[in-house]
Amino acid sequence: MTADKLSVQVAINSWRSTVERVNKMLSNLPDDQLLKEVAPGRNRVVYLLGHLTAAHDAMFPILGLGERLHPELDAIFVSNPDKTEAQPPVGELRKYWEEVNGKLLAQFATLSPDEWLLRHNAMSEEDYAKDPTRNRLAVLLSRTNHMSYHLGQMTLALK
Amino acid sequence: MTADKLSVQVAINSWRSTVERVNKMLSNLPDDQLLKEVAPGRNRVVYLLGHLTAAHDAMFPILGLGERLHPELDAIFVSNPDKTEAQPPVGELRKYWEEVNGKLLAQFATLSPDEWLLRHNAMSEEDYAKDPTRNRLAVLLSRTNHMSYHLGQMTLALK
Repeated sequence: MTADKLSVQVAINSWRSTVERVNKMLSNLPDDQLLKEVAPGRNRVVYLLGHLTAAHDAMFPILGLGERLHPELDAIFVSNPDKTEAQPPVGELRKYWEEVNGKLLAQFATLSPDEWLLRHNAMSEEDYAKDPTRNRLAVLLSRTNHMSYHLGQMTLALK
Repeated sequence: MTADKLSVQVAINSWRSTVERVNKMLSNLPDDQLLKEVAPGRNRVVYLLGHLTAAHDAMFPILGLGERLHPELDAIFVSNPDKTEAQPPVGELRKYWEEVNGKLLAQFATLSPDEWLLRHNAMSEEDYAKDPTRNRLAVLLSRTNHMSYHLGQMTLALK
């Protein structure tokens, strides 16, 4: 494996293992426990699940990997706080989560190491020219950390 | 910047920005608030601060960057749960956190891109030969995620 391919593979492994940790946690939380707040007065697990699904879904256009599958989630789980918008049933959200992550991981494999180091689409050509570290790989690491951040919170709802 | 150098730089940026987020959170938490549990019956912020400091300190030998600065933290913040061992004063822990992260970041800059892709010291030669993604870069990403995970929890103690 070449050095640049190895770096990208390490980053994708880190993403995948974090998704697997979330999946494991979700499999240990029955639907009614997903409706628990992670701490008193804080987000419910179900909100964080929708929030992560929306953030991952937004990666398709940012990484140039096609259209979003569920743009409707943004208004419910990103632009507005928990308990203000009507949410899809928990079972649907679990399906969206699987669907978005399954397609993302398949799409990641279509990018070459060089393509991972190209500008991401939330970045202008000008800003990218000033800072070439604002690339697709940076988006992948940023979203992996975002997922870990909320995983740490969701885990608090486990018994 | 060469492709492999760029990948490593993206990973180090991700580490650094996560440390900065923790620092910002800590600067917003007076010492007495560090003694709060992140959720009822869960770890206190001060324990998670010690836990992260111990985990980062352990990166020196794992990455081949020298001796640990505070090996004594493991017994208090890794091997044993919160509220079982006598802890250093909060002010001391804040200093250790700064000290360990400052030295780590300086040491990161001494590794070449190729060295980041070499085996880390918690890995045998044999296992590394089977899976070359078990390298220093993987340790960096794993510890960045670990920090994000607990940052998500510590943030719950903010008002």
